Amino acid sequence: MDARVTESPEAWLRANRERLWEEYKDLVRIPSISAKPGHASDVRRAADWVAARCAKAGLSNIQMLEAGGHPTVYAEWLGAPGAPTILVYAHFDVQPPEPLELWTTPAFEPTLRDGRLYARGASDDKATLFISLATIEAWIATQGRLPCNVKVFYEGEEEVGSPTLGAILDRHGPMLSADLCLSADGGMMFPDRPDVSVGNRGICKLEFTLRTAAKDMHSGSFGGAILNPLTAMARVVATLHADDDRVSVKGFYEGVRETTGDDRADLAGVPFDEGAWLAGVGATAVWGERQRSVLEKLWLRPTLEVNGMWGGYQGEGSKTVLPCEAHAKLTCRLVPGQDPRTVQAAVEAHLRSVCPEGATIEVRQGGGGAAAYEIAPDHPALGVIEAVLEDVYGMPCFRTRIGGTLPLCAVFKDRLGLDTVPMSFSTGDEDYHAPNEFFREASFDRGMTAWARVYQALASLKV
Amino acid sequence: MDARVTESPEAWLRANRERLWEEYKDLVRIPSISAKPGHASDVRRAADWVAARCAKAGLSNIQMLEAGGHPTVYAEWLGAPGAPTILVYAHFDVQPPEPLELWTTPAFEPTLRDGRLYARGASDDKATLFISLATIEAWIATQGRLPCNVKVFYEGEEEVGSPTLGAILDRHGPMLSADLCLSADGGMMFPDRPDVSVGNRGICKLEFTLRTAAKDMHSGSFGGAILNPLTAMARVVATLHADDDRVSVKGFYEGVRETTGDDRADLAGVPFDEGAWLAGVGATAVWGERQRSVLEKLWLRPTLEVNGMWGGYQGEGSKTVLPCEAHAKLTCRLVPGQDPRTVQAAVEAHLRSVCPEGATIEVRQGGGGAAAYEIAPDHPALGVIEAVLEDVYGMPCFRTRIGGTLPLCAVFKDRLGLDTVPMSFSTGDEDYHAPNEFFREASFDRGMTAWARVYQALASLKV
Repeated sequence: MDARVTESPEAWLRANRERLWEEYKDLVRIPSISAKPGHASDVRRAADWVAARCAKAGLSNIQMLEAGGHPTVYAEWLGAPGAPTILVYAHFDVQPPEPLELWTTPAFEPTLRDGRLYARGASDDKATLFISLATIEAWIATQGRLPCNVKVFYEGEEEVGSPTLGAILDRHGPMLSADLCLSADGGMMFPDRPDVSVGNRGICKLEFTLRTAAKDMHSGSFGGAILNPLTAMARVVATLHADDDRVSVKGFYEGVRETTGDDRADLAGVPFDEGAWLAGVGATAVWGERQRSVLEKLWLRPTLEVNGMWGGYQGEGSKTVLPCEAHAKLTCRLVPGQDPRTVQAAVEAHLRSVCPEGATIEVRQGGGGAAAYEIAPDHPALGVIEAVLEDVYGMPCFRTRIGGTLPLCAVFKDRLGLDTVPMSFSTGDEDYHAPNEFFREASFDRGMTAWARVYQALASLKV
Repeated sequence: MDARVTESPEAWLRANRERLWEEYKDLVRIPSISAKPGHASDVRRAADWVAARCAKAGLSNIQMLEAGGHPTVYAEWLGAPGAPTILVYAHFDVQPPEPLELWTTPAFEPTLRDGRLYARGASDDKATLFISLATIEAWIATQGRLPCNVKVFYEGEEEVGSPTLGAILDRHGPMLSADLCLSADGGMMFPDRPDVSVGNRGICKLEFTLRTAAKDMHSGSFGGAILNPLTAMARVVATLHADDDRVSVKGFYEGVRETTGDDRADLAGVPFDEGAWLAGVGATAVWGERQRSVLEKLWLRPTLEVNGMWGGYQGEGSKTVLPCEAHAKLTCRLVPGQDPRTVQAAVEAHLRSVCPEGATIEVRQGGGGAAAYEIAPDHPALGVIEAVLEDVYGMPCFRTRIGGTLPLCAVFKDRLGLDTVPMSFSTGDEDYHAPNEFFREASFDRGMTAWARVYQALASLKV
């Protein structure tokens, strides 16, 4: 039941706060894991939920945009002729929740503890997706209109690198034309200080398998005389980084622009506490490229990471097996100037070149990846959004970058000519790709206020 | 129902063949996986089955020997004063069956296909265990006696390195005194050519974990700036072998006697087909220490193998996680002159010395291990047993070694002063530590004949 007695969108949001919180939890309960084929129907269930919620908010022309992958939900309100059109982006798919045994409460049963809602997707990206939609409802419910035109574009495959995003844009490009993309995906550095991100890294993915025989063997009867694929895997993976921790894949750093003095000045302006950052995850030492700061490594440098590596016996006790195969999953984080397919090919060529005699290698490319993105520092939207955030938080806003990937940014720029500014209320400590992901109740409320105001502020954007 | 109309043990075995085959399958059905705590009750169920079968065979003084681990079944027939006493050894525990999905038929549902019985434990070691017992029954049922004194010692924890064997011998040493140990565990090289093994390698085990943080992290927010434990694992495991594939752990080869000219002559006498050996497991290349033959590497050289290595995401699709820990399980095969605990300590010291900055290492020793063993080449039992096998197979017997481990050999020599000769009818191609383990029906029958005759032949052993 809506409380339509209020006057302003913000007052309406406060009055309907309990209902909205419960709706957000309903969305979080759906295990929309895009990486797992077995959960495809859950991703679709989440799409249906979001589409119905768009209708309830007062949006029209609601469509499921499909190109062979998980669907995207599109909807619009275009009743402000002459005003700018904002494309609102978010995603309703989530990361796999494994390892399940490390969750304090089940991954898809949202549980509030100490002002934090714990669940997979509670932070990334269902919180700000829901905020972007509820604030639209707040405007339409109280004012009968939005201050600017809005098109929402809620994706269902961000966590697997948006494999069909390009095809969807090919099919629906004209419908998606806008003046700016405001992204509910992204993140802020701190829960109590505002920042605006001006760029994010890209990504590419590979998996590979090393095989040395057709079947597992007894280590007493074959060990030491046939290559152990785990030894081979260790040798192969060990070649991926040099002794100085730089990626040693030939051509990996090609096109990467060197960090400038201006970059370093920007980095120096970020209130980053290295000790707190390490302590937050229980790490004791910084790693990686020498002579570069943590933020430089996370924001302006590409990486190659092993996300999974396995083979042989993992159960209790011991098993004297000489396994016949070993596996690894890799991802690279990319910066502006790097092409995902070129880097993928370079890594594959490296893997093939170091595959030892006695082993065969099978490399599987993990889709087309995503390029990195950066917005021009003088883009007018930055100032508008910074002003809203400074008002909501009551303190100055600083500029950051995102070490992770918002695949849409580069794709929207490339296909739609759109620049993107993230306005997410997730923060990096919320374990959003790890067990016990959470979102702060306080960020839910602050996000509602900011999004309600940003629709107003962007109405005056000169584009 | 026994067929007591026959006269000789061999005739009795033929007449009762169908019943005996079914009994053997009953034993194989019990999932007596000693490595898995959850299967401890199955190991005990197998012990009860074996003890009952000893009683049925006509043995007496049946006991469960216990020292805190899985039980050993002891039983005896001591009615031949003046004749030698033979300690018969076998084990009724089995390896874990994983990976289950690679089994054509379920691991604990023995299934006959093309003259082979497929099941975990069908070969190692339930086949020859059962043969050793059924042939005792054949003698007692037909002759009312055995030609020599027999003590059976059927162990329940061979596959986990016999952790309480020493303690059991401490408690029951005098009861176990004998003139020779005849082991139903071991193996022959070929299903149709006889050999006798004159030695086997020892083993020691370790597991270790590398940790670089307290929780899994987002690879975009932490990757490249905190050490990836999988990168660390690869670097650590890659140091275990030098470029020439020798184990590079300091002190690893200490005490290992160099292969002699006589050793090489013995090896040359073995009808070993390297191409067939490789093809049997689908491997294409020989690996390991340079300038040494496959058999030399398998029988006379120590090894260090990674039996399992894992960390991070292993599921379908991808997950952009920077994991916080990685794991590995190692075993070393040892030769005479090496002490298991000394080698374990050397490997642990190596692992600790190469653990990179930013990671912590936790090493778990996998029990006391087992020393290697070799019998004197002129031991009188060798000639007696070779004669029996040459008669059963109708061809000359050659001498081999076992690349795997029969922990009891070194322990029996050390604690009881007993030499051990294996007389197993398993062959190395039977995948006995891998999926689709099998045992040949023909070996079942040949084994019955040989064991029935060897009790007679050993009666004249001069010890």
